[in-house]
Amino acid sequence: MLGVSTWLNRDRLRVVLVAARNPLNIGAAARAMSNFGFSRLRVVNAYQIAWREARSAVGASEVLRTAEEFTTIADAVADCELVVGTSGAAKREVEQPVLRLEQAARKIKGTRGSVALLFGSEKTGLSRDDLSYCHLLLRIPTREGHPSMNLGQAVAVCLFELVRGAPVQASTKPQRAGAANLQRITMFLLDTLRASGYVKARTAVSTEQKVRRLVRRLELTPEDAVVLLGMLRQIAWKLHRKE
Amino acid sequence: MLGVSTWLNRDRLRVVLVAARNPLNIGAAARAMSNFGFSRLRVVNAYQIAWREARSAVGASEVLRTAEEFTTIADAVADCELVVGTSGAAKREVEQPVLRLEQAARKIKGTRGSVALLFGSEKTGLSRDDLSYCHLLLRIPTREGHPSMNLGQAVAVCLFELVRGAPVQASTKPQRAGAANLQRITMFLLDTLRASGYVKARTAVSTEQKVRRLVRRLELTPEDAVVLLGMLRQIAWKLHRKE
Repeated sequence: MLGVSTWLNRDRLRVVLVAARNPLNIGAAARAMSNFGFSRLRVVNAYQIAWREARSAVGASEVLRTAEEFTTIADAVADCELVVGTSGAAKREVEQPVLRLEQAARKIKGTRGSVALLFGSEKTGLSRDDLSYCHLLLRIPTREGHPSMNLGQAVAVCLFELVRGAPVQASTKPQRAGAANLQRITMFLLDTLRASGYVKARTAVSTEQKVRRLVRRLELTPEDAVVLLGMLRQIAWKLHRKE
Repeated sequence: MLGVSTWLNRDRLRVVLVAARNPLNIGAAARAMSNFGFSRLRVVNAYQIAWREARSAVGASEVLRTAEEFTTIADAVADCELVVGTSGAAKREVEQPVLRLEQAARKIKGTRGSVALLFGSEKTGLSRDDLSYCHLLLRIPTREGHPSMNLGQAVAVCLFELVRGAPVQASTKPQRAGAANLQRITMFLLDTLRASGYVKARTAVSTEQKVRRLVRRLELTPEDAVVLLGMLRQIAWKLHRKE
Protein backbone atom coordinates (compact mmCIF):
# COMPACT_ATOMS: atom_id res chain seq x y z
CA MET A 1 0.00 0.00 0.00
CA LEU A 2 1.51 3.27 -1.03
CA GLY A 3 -0.44 5.17 1.60
CA VAL A 4 1.67 3.81 4.43
CA SER A 5 4.80 5.84 4.61
CA THR A 6 7.94 4.13 5.71
CA TRP A 7 9.46 7.49 6.54
CA LEU A 8 8.59 9.49 9.55
CA ASN A 9 7.60 13.07 8.98
CA ARG A 10 9.55 14.48 11.91
CA ASP A 11 6.98 17.16 12.57
CA ARG A 12 4.50 14.48 13.51
CA LEU A 13 6.42 13.33 16.58
CA ARG A 14 5.96 14.92 19.98
CA VAL A 15 8.58 14.05 22.57
CA VAL A 16 6.87 14.24 25.94
CA LEU A 17 8.93 14.45 29.14
CA VAL A 18 6.85 13.58 32.19
CA ALA A 19 7.92 14.99 35.57
CA ALA A 20 11.53 15.49 34.55
CA ARG A 21 13.67 16.59 37.47
CA ASN A 22 17.13 17.27 36.17
CA PRO A 23 17.81 20.31 33.99
CA LEU A 24 20.85 18.64 32.45
CA ASN A 25 18.71 15.74 31.30
CA ILE A 26 16.04 18.03 29.90
CA GLY A 27 18.75 19.88 28.02
CA ALA A 28 20.23 16.60 26.78
CA ALA A 29 16.84 15.41 25.53
CA ALA A 30 16.36 18.68 23.64
CA ARG A 31 19.85 18.42 22.19
CA ALA A 32 19.23 14.91 20.87
CA MET A 33 15.98 16.15 19.30
CA SER A 34 17.84 18.91 17.57
CA ASN A 35 20.60 16.51 16.42
CA PHE A 36 18.07 14.24 14.76
CA GLY A 37 15.81 16.95 13.39
CA PHE A 38 12.84 16.77 15.78
CA SER A 39 11.39 19.97 17.18
CA ARG A 40 8.18 19.30 19.10
CA LEU A 41 9.05 19.01 22.79
CA ARG A 42 6.35 18.88 25.44
CA VAL A 43 6.86 18.79 29.17
CA VAL A 44 4.25 17.58 31.61
CA ASN A 45 4.41 18.56 35.21
CA ALA A 46 8.06 19.47 35.09
CA TYR A 47 9.78 20.42 38.30
CA GLN A 48 9.60 24.13 37.79
CA ILE A 49 13.10 24.92 38.99
CA ALA A 50 14.63 22.31 36.71
CA TRP A 51 12.54 23.49 33.79
CA ARG A 52 13.46 27.15 34.23
CA GLU A 53 17.12 26.26 34.62
CA ALA A 54 17.14 24.09 31.50
CA ARG A 55 15.43 26.79 29.46
CA SER A 56 17.72 29.55 30.57
CA ALA A 57 20.93 27.55 30.13
CA VAL A 58 23.55 29.06 27.88
CA GLY A 59 23.02 27.66 24.41
CA ALA A 60 19.52 26.43 25.18
CA SER A 61 18.19 25.40 21.85
CA GLU A 62 15.28 26.44 19.73
CA VAL A 63 13.69 23.16 20.81
CA LEU A 64 13.61 24.29 24.44
CA ARG A 65 12.43 27.78 23.61
CA THR A 66 9.45 26.52 21.64
CA ALA A 67 8.59 23.68 24.06
CA GLU A 68 5.02 23.50 25.32
CA GLU A 69 4.05 22.99 28.96
CA PHE A 70 1.15 20.87 30.19
CA THR A 71 -0.14 19.86 33.58
CA THR A 72 -1.66 16.56 32.52
CA ILE A 73 -0.66 13.80 30.16
CA ALA A 74 -4.17 13.77 28.75
CA ASP A 75 -3.72 17.31 27.48
CA ALA A 76 -0.18 16.72 26.27
CA VAL A 77 -1.23 13.84 24.03
CA ALA A 78 -4.69 15.05 23.06
CA ASP A 79 -3.82 15.65 19.41
CA CYS A 80 -1.99 12.36 18.94
CA GLU A 81 -3.16 9.25 17.14
CA LEU A 82 -0.63 6.96 18.79
CA VAL A 83 0.80 7.29 22.29
CA VAL A 84 3.90 5.30 23.08
CA GLY A 85 5.39 4.99 26.56
CA THR A 86 9.04 4.14 27.13
CA SER A 87 9.90 1.65 29.79
CA GLY A 88 13.23 0.23 30.83
CA ALA A 89 11.81 -2.51 32.95
CA ALA A 90 10.65 -5.66 31.26
CA LYS A 91 9.53 -7.07 34.57
CA ARG A 92 6.90 -4.55 35.53
CA GLU A 93 3.43 -5.87 35.01
CA VAL A 94 1.84 -3.91 32.25
CA GLU A 95 -1.29 -4.39 30.27
CA GLN A 96 -0.24 -2.87 26.98
CA PRO A 97 1.79 -4.67 24.41
CA VAL A 98 5.50 -4.16 24.97
CA LEU A 99 7.52 -3.86 21.79
CA ARG A 100 11.25 -3.68 21.39
CA LEU A 101 12.39 -0.29 20.15
CA GLU A 102 13.01 -1.61 16.62
CA GLN A 103 9.44 -2.88 16.29
CA ALA A 104 7.85 0.11 17.99
CA ALA A 105 9.69 2.41 15.60
CA ARG A 106 8.16 0.58 12.66
CA LYS A 107 4.73 1.10 14.21
CA ILE A 108 5.42 4.78 14.77
CA LYS A 109 6.61 5.31 11.20
CA GLY A 110 3.52 3.56 9.88
CA THR A 111 1.14 5.87 11.74
CA ARG A 112 -0.36 8.68 9.67
CA GLY A 113 -1.30 11.10 12.42
CA SER A 114 0.76 12.58 15.23
CA VAL A 115 2.60 10.34 17.65
CA ALA A 116 3.53 11.06 21.28
CA LEU A 117 6.61 9.41 22.72
CA LEU A 118 6.58 9.58 26.51
CA PHE A 119 9.61 9.48 28.79
CA GLY A 120 9.27 9.27 32.56
CA SER A 121 11.29 10.93 35.28
CA GLU A 122 14.85 9.81 35.94
CA LYS A 123 13.95 8.38 39.33
CA THR A 124 10.81 6.42 38.71
CA GLY A 125 10.13 6.23 35.02
CA LEU A 126 6.51 6.39 33.92
CA SER A 127 3.98 5.46 36.60
CA ARG A 128 1.22 2.95 36.15
CA ASP A 129 -1.12 5.88 35.79
CA ASP A 130 1.06 7.53 33.15
CA LEU A 131 1.26 4.29 31.23
CA SER A 132 -2.49 4.00 31.14
CA TYR A 133 -2.53 6.75 28.50
CA CYS A 134 -0.34 4.70 26.19
CA HIS A 135 -1.35 2.45 23.32
CA LEU A 136 1.84 0.52 23.57
CA LEU A 137 5.10 0.42 25.42
CA LEU A 138 8.52 0.61 23.94
CA ARG A 139 11.48 -1.15 25.47
CA ILE A 140 15.06 -0.32 24.58
CA PRO A 141 16.94 -3.63 24.47
CA THR A 142 19.20 -3.04 27.46
CA ARG A 143 20.60 -5.93 29.44
CA GLU A 144 18.72 -7.36 32.38
CA GLY A 145 21.35 -6.56 34.96
CA HIS A 146 21.28 -2.83 34.15
CA PRO A 147 18.11 -1.95 32.22
CA SER A 148 17.60 1.64 33.24
CA MET A 149 19.03 4.26 30.89
CA ASN A 150 19.88 7.86 31.46
CA LEU A 151 17.01 10.03 30.16
CA GLY A 152 19.01 11.99 27.60
CA GLN A 153 20.59 8.82 26.28
CA ALA A 154 17.24 7.02 26.05
CA VAL A 155 15.81 9.90 24.03
CA ALA A 156 18.84 9.88 21.73
CA VAL A 157 18.62 6.14 21.11
CA CYS A 158 14.86 6.23 20.38
CA LEU A 159 15.12 9.15 17.99
CA PHE A 160 18.08 7.60 16.22
CA GLU A 161 16.03 4.45 15.63
CA LEU A 162 13.31 6.60 14.09
CA VAL A 163 15.67 8.22 11.58
CA ARG A 164 18.01 5.30 11.00
CA GLY A 165 18.11 3.39 7.79
CA ALA A 166 17.25 6.48 5.79
CA PRO A 167 18.61 6.24 2.29
CA VAL A 168 22.29 5.66 2.58
CA GLN A 169 24.88 6.95 0.25
CA ALA A 170 26.47 4.52 -2.06
CA SER A 171 29.58 3.07 -0.57
CA THR A 172 32.36 5.57 -0.48
CA LYS A 173 34.89 3.01 -1.61
CA PRO A 174 37.35 4.96 -3.67
CA GLN A 175 38.44 4.11 -7.16
CA ARG A 176 41.38 1.79 -7.58
CA ALA A 177 44.78 2.49 -8.99
CA GLY A 178 45.39 1.40 -12.58
CA ALA A 179 47.40 -1.67 -13.39
CA ALA A 180 50.22 0.36 -14.93
CA ASN A 181 50.95 2.12 -11.67
CA LEU A 182 50.66 -1.11 -9.72
CA GLN A 183 53.27 -2.58 -12.00
CA ARG A 184 55.54 0.43 -11.51
CA ILE A 185 55.17 0.07 -7.75
CA THR A 186 56.00 -3.61 -8.04
CA MET A 187 59.13 -2.88 -10.05
CA PHE A 188 60.39 -0.19 -7.68
CA LEU A 189 59.63 -2.30 -4.64
CA LEU A 190 61.49 -5.26 -6.13
CA ASP A 191 64.38 -3.02 -7.09
CA THR A 192 64.51 -1.75 -3.52
CA LEU A 193 64.31 -5.23 -2.09
CA ARG A 194 67.10 -6.45 -4.34
CA ALA A 195 69.31 -3.51 -3.43
CA SER A 196 68.74 -4.13 0.25
CA GLY A 197 69.54 -7.84 0.07
CA TYR A 198 66.00 -9.05 0.75
CA VAL A 199 65.77 -11.05 -2.48
CA LYS A 200 67.77 -14.27 -2.45
CA ALA A 201 68.88 -15.75 -5.75
CA ARG A 202 67.37 -19.12 -4.99
CA THR A 203 63.88 -17.75 -4.41
CA ALA A 204 63.99 -14.70 -6.68
CA VAL A 205 61.14 -15.84 -8.92
CA SER A 206 58.76 -16.71 -6.14
CA THR A 207 59.63 -13.48 -4.33
CA GLU A 208 58.77 -11.55 -7.44
CA GLN A 209 55.39 -13.21 -7.64
CA LYS A 210 54.84 -12.69 -3.95
CA VAL A 211 55.53 -8.99 -4.27
CA ARG A 212 53.29 -8.67 -7.30
CA ARG A 213 50.38 -10.29 -5.51
CA LEU A 214 51.01 -8.29 -2.38
CA VAL A 215 50.91 -4.97 -4.24
CA ARG A 216 47.63 -5.95 -5.86
CA ARG A 217 46.03 -6.96 -2.60
CA LEU A 218 46.58 -3.51 -1.15
CA GLU A 219 43.55 -2.05 -2.94
CA LEU A 220 45.41 1.19 -3.55
CA THR A 221 43.54 4.26 -4.71
CA PRO A 222 45.02 6.17 -7.65
CA GLU A 223 46.25 8.87 -5.27
CA ASP A 224 47.84 6.43 -2.84
CA ALA A 225 49.56 4.68 -5.71
CA VAL A 226 51.22 7.94 -6.74
CA VAL A 227 52.32 8.64 -3.15
CA LEU A 228 53.72 5.16 -2.70
CA LEU A 229 55.51 5.33 -6.01
CA GLY A 230 57.15 8.59 -4.94
CA MET A 231 58.29 7.02 -1.68
CA LEU A 232 59.75 3.97 -3.38
CA ARG A 233 61.53 6.04 -6.02
CA GLN A 234 63.22 8.04 -3.30
CA ILE A 235 64.21 4.97 -1.28
CA ALA A 236 65.54 3.22 -4.38
CA TRP A 237 67.52 6.29 -5.39
CA LYS A 238 69.09 6.49 -1.95
CA LEU A 239 69.96 2.81 -1.87
CA HIS A 240 71.63 2.94 -5.27
CA ARG A 241 73.47 6.15 -4.60
CA LYS A 242 75.13 4.48 -1.64
CA GLU A 243 76.19 1.36 -3.46
CA MET B 1 30.27 -21.68 7.86
CA LEU B 2 29.26 -21.90 11.46
CA GLY B 3 32.57 -20.53 12.66
CA VAL B 4 31.75 -17.02 11.52
CA SER B 5 29.60 -15.32 14.11
CA THR B 6 26.97 -12.89 12.92
CA TRP B 7 26.61 -11.34 16.36
CA LEU B 8 29.07 -9.10 17.93
CA ASN B 9 30.83 -10.71 20.83
CA ARG B 10 30.63 -7.73 23.15
CA ASP B 11 33.95 -8.58 24.73
CA ARG B 12 35.61 -7.80 21.44
CA LEU B 13 34.73 -4.12 21.48
CA ARG B 14 36.90 -1.53 23.19
CA VAL B 15 35.29 1.86 23.71
CA VAL B 16 38.13 4.37 23.68
CA LEU B 17 37.58 7.88 25.02
CA VAL B 18 40.27 10.29 23.86
CA ALA B 19 41.01 13.37 25.99
CA ALA B 20 37.60 13.38 27.65
CA ARG B 21 37.15 16.45 29.84
CA ASN B 22 33.82 16.11 31.58
CA PRO B 23 33.34 13.56 34.37
CA LEU B 24 29.59 13.48 33.75
CA ASN B 25 30.17 12.51 30.15
CA ILE B 26 32.70 9.86 31.08
CA GLY B 27 30.16 8.47 33.54
CA ALA B 28 27.41 8.61 30.93
CA ALA B 29 29.56 6.74 28.42
CA ALA B 30 30.27 4.03 31.00
CA ARG B 31 26.59 3.82 31.87
CA ALA B 32 25.56 3.31 28.25
CA MET B 33 28.20 0.58 27.97
CA SER B 34 26.77 -1.14 31.00
CA ASN B 35 23.20 -0.77 29.66
CA PHE B 36 24.12 -2.48 26.43
CA GLY B 37 26.41 -5.10 27.91
CA PHE B 38 29.84 -3.77 26.93
CA SER B 39 32.61 -3.74 29.50
CA ARG B 40 35.94 -2.78 27.92
CA LEU B 41 36.47 0.94 28.46
CA ARG B 42 39.79 2.61 27.67
CA VAL B 43 40.70 6.21 28.25
CA VAL B 44 43.54 7.96 26.48
CA ASN B 45 45.05 11.06 27.90
CA ALA B 46 42.06 11.83 30.09
CA TYR B 47 42.01 15.07 32.02
CA GLN B 48 43.12 13.63 35.33
CA ILE B 49 40.73 15.59 37.49
CA ALA B 50 37.75 14.60 35.36
CA TRP B 51 38.86 11.01 35.30
CA ARG B 52 39.33 10.77 39.05
CA GLU B 53 36.00 12.45 39.65
CA ALA B 54 34.16 10.13 37.26
CA ARG B 55 35.74 7.08 38.84
CA SER B 56 34.96 8.11 42.37
CA ALA B 57 31.37 9.18 41.66
CA VAL B 58 28.67 7.52 43.72
CA GLY B 59 27.43 4.51 41.81
CA ALA B 60 30.43 4.48 39.49
CA SER B 61 30.05 1.27 37.63
CA GLU B 62 32.14 -1.82 37.23
CA VAL B 63 32.92 -0.49 33.75
CA LEU B 64 34.68 2.54 35.21
CA ARG B 65 36.47 0.54 37.86
CA THR B 66 37.96 -1.84 35.33
CA ALA B 67 38.74 0.82 32.72
CA GLU B 68 42.29 0.95 31.39
CA GLU B 69 44.34 4.10 31.02
CA PHE B 70 46.70 4.88 28.15
CA THR B 71 48.82 7.83 27.17
CA THR B 72 48.78 7.22 23.43
CA ILE B 73 46.16 6.06 20.96
CA ALA B 74 48.71 3.69 19.43
CA ASP B 75 48.92 1.76 22.72
CA ALA B 76 45.18 1.89 23.34
CA VAL B 77 44.37 0.24 20.02
CA ALA B 78 47.42 -2.01 19.72
CA ASP B 79 45.46 -5.26 20.12
CA CYS B 80 42.67 -4.27 17.71
CA GLU B 81 42.10 -5.46 14.18
CA LEU B 82 39.79 -2.61 13.24
CA VAL B 83 40.00 0.96 14.54
CA VAL B 84 36.94 3.13 13.97
CA GLY B 85 36.82 6.86 14.70
CA THR B 86 33.58 8.70 15.35
CA SER B 87 33.08 12.04 13.69
CA GLY B 88 30.13 14.37 13.78
CA ALA B 89 31.26 16.54 10.96
CA ALA B 90 30.61 15.43 7.44
CA LYS B 91 32.34 18.54 6.20
CA ARG B 92 35.79 18.00 7.61
CA GLU B 93 38.13 16.81 4.95
CA VAL B 94 39.19 13.33 5.84
CA GLU B 95 41.04 10.72 3.93
CA GLN B 96 39.53 7.58 5.36
CA PRO B 97 36.23 6.19 4.13
CA VAL B 98 33.34 7.69 6.09
CA LEU B 99 30.49 5.29 6.76
CA ARG B 100 27.13 6.03 8.30
CA LEU B 101 26.69 4.37 11.66
CA GLU B 102 24.43 1.65 10.20
CA GLN B 103 27.05 0.59 7.67
CA ALA B 104 29.98 0.95 10.04
CA ALA B 105 28.18 -1.28 12.54
CA ARG B 106 27.87 -3.97 9.89
CA LYS B 107 31.59 -3.71 9.29
CA ILE B 108 32.34 -3.92 13.01
CA LYS B 109 30.13 -6.95 13.47
CA GLY B 110 31.77 -8.66 10.53
CA THR B 111 35.25 -8.24 11.98
CA ARG B 112 36.67 -11.28 13.70
CA GLY B 113 39.23 -9.70 15.95
CA SER B 114 38.96 -6.88 18.46
CA VAL B 115 37.58 -3.53 17.42
CA ALA B 116 38.34 -0.10 18.89
CA LEU B 117 35.66 2.57 18.72
CA LEU B 118 37.17 6.00 19.34
CA PHE B 119 35.33 9.04 20.68
CA GLY B 120 36.97 12.44 20.85
CA SER B 121 36.71 15.14 23.48
CA GLU B 122 33.49 17.08 23.87
CA LYS B 123 35.08 20.29 22.66
CA THR B 124 36.98 19.29 19.60
CA GLY B 125 36.19 15.70 18.70
CA LEU B 126 39.01 13.60 17.35
CA SER B 127 41.92 15.54 15.90
CA ARG B 128 43.42 14.94 12.49
CA ASP B 129 46.27 13.19 14.23
CA ASP B 130 43.87 10.99 16.24
CA LEU B 131 41.98 10.09 13.08
CA SER B 132 45.14 8.97 11.33
CA TYR B 133 45.10 5.85 13.52
CA CYS B 134 41.68 4.85 12.19
CA HIS B 135 40.78 2.49 9.37
CA LEU B 136 37.48 4.17 8.85
CA LEU B 137 35.26 6.87 10.25
CA LEU B 138 31.75 6.47 11.52
CA ARG B 139 29.19 9.23 11.20
CA ILE B 140 25.97 9.26 13.18
CA PRO B 141 23.30 10.56 10.79
CA THR B 142 22.57 13.83 12.56
CA ARG B 143 21.20 16.81 10.69
CA GLU B 144 23.49 19.27 9.05
CA GLY B 145 22.40 22.25 11.09
CA HIS B 146 23.30 20.58 14.40
CA PRO B 147 25.61 17.65 13.77
CA SER B 148 27.56 17.52 17.01
CA MET B 149 26.23 15.13 19.64
CA ASN B 150 26.79 14.99 23.35
CA LEU B 151 29.49 12.40 24.11
CA GLY B 152 27.37 10.15 26.34
CA GLN B 153 24.54 10.20 23.84
CA ALA B 154 26.83 9.44 20.92
CA VAL B 155 28.23 6.43 22.79
CA ALA B 156 24.69 5.23 23.60
CA VAL B 157 23.51 5.51 20.00
CA CYS B 158 26.56 3.72 18.59
CA LEU B 159 26.33 0.85 21.07
CA PHE B 160 22.61 0.50 20.50
CA GLU B 161 23.22 0.14 16.79
CA LEU B 162 25.70 -2.63 17.54
CA VAL B 163 23.20 -4.66 19.54
CA ARG B 164 20.02 -3.83 17.66
CA GLY B 165 18.04 -5.76 15.19
CA ALA B 166 18.42 -8.82 13.09
CA PRO B 167 21.53 -10.87 12.59
CA VAL B 168 23.78 -9.49 9.95
CA GLN B 169 26.00 -11.55 7.79
CA ALA B 170 29.60 -11.66 8.68
CA SER B 171 31.79 -10.26 6.00
CA THR B 172 33.78 -12.73 3.98
CA LYS B 173 36.63 -10.26 3.95
CA PRO B 174 39.79 -11.79 5.27
CA GLN B 175 40.95 -10.93 8.71
CA ARG B 176 42.93 -7.75 9.13
CA ALA B 177 46.33 -7.09 10.56
CA GLY B 178 46.35 -5.89 14.16
CA ALA B 179 46.96 -2.26 14.99
CA ALA B 180 50.26 -3.07 16.69
CA ASN B 181 51.73 -4.43 13.47
CA LEU B 182 50.32 -1.56 11.45
CA GLN B 183 52.04 0.79 13.84
CA ARG B 184 55.32 -1.12 13.45
CA ILE B 185 55.01 -0.89 9.68
CA THR B 186 54.35 2.83 9.98
CA MET B 187 57.44 3.31 12.14
CA PHE B 188 59.72 1.33 9.83
CA LEU B 189 58.36 3.03 6.72
CA LEU B 190 58.87 6.45 8.29
CA ASP B 191 62.35 5.47 9.37
CA THR B 192 63.11 4.39 5.82
CA LEU B 193 61.66 7.56 4.36
CA ARG B 194 63.66 9.70 6.73
CA ALA B 195 66.87 7.85 5.94
CA SER B 196 66.25 8.26 2.24
CA GLY B 197 65.59 11.99 2.47
CA TYR B 198 61.89 11.77 1.58
CA VAL B 199 60.77 13.48 4.78
CA LYS B 200 61.37 17.22 4.84
CA ALA B 201 61.69 18.97 8.18
CA ARG B 202 59.04 21.53 7.28
CA THR B 203 56.35 18.93 6.58
CA ALA B 204 57.51 16.15 8.90
CA VAL B 205 54.35 16.09 11.02
CA SER B 206 51.93 16.01 8.11
CA THR B 207 54.06 13.37 6.38
CA GLU B 208 53.88 11.26 9.48
CA GLN B 209 50.10 11.49 9.52
CA LYS B 210 49.97 10.85 5.81
CA VAL B 211 52.02 7.69 6.18
CA ARG B 212 49.94 6.51 9.12
CA ARG B 213 46.72 6.91 7.17
CA LEU B 214 48.20 5.32 4.09
CA VAL B 215 49.27 2.20 5.99
CA ARG B 216 45.80 1.86 7.48
CA ARG B 217 44.09 2.21 4.13
CA LEU B 218 45.95 -0.77 2.76
CA GLU B 219 43.64 -3.26 4.47
CA LEU B 220 46.55 -5.58 5.10
CA THR B 221 45.92 -9.15 6.16
CA PRO B 222 47.93 -10.39 9.15
CA GLU B 223 50.16 -12.40 6.80
CA ASP B 224 50.81 -9.49 4.45
CA ALA B 225 51.63 -7.28 7.39
CA VAL B 226 54.34 -9.67 8.51
CA VAL B 227 55.77 -9.86 4.98
CA LEU B 228 55.76 -6.09 4.57
CA LEU B 229 57.35 -5.62 7.96
CA GLY B 230 60.13 -7.99 6.99
CA MET B 231 60.75 -6.07 3.77
CA LEU B 232 60.85 -2.72 5.51
CA ARG B 233 63.16 -4.00 8.23
CA GLN B 234 65.61 -5.16 5.62
CA ILE B 235 65.44 -1.91 3.63
CA ALA B 236 65.87 0.17 6.78
CA TRP B 237 68.81 -1.93 7.90
CA LYS B 238 70.50 -1.49 4.55
CA LEU B 239 69.92 2.26 4.48
CA HIS B 240 71.34 2.74 7.95
CA ARG B 241 74.30 0.47 7.39
CA LYS B 242 75.34 2.64 4.49
CA GLU B 243 75.09 5.91 6.33
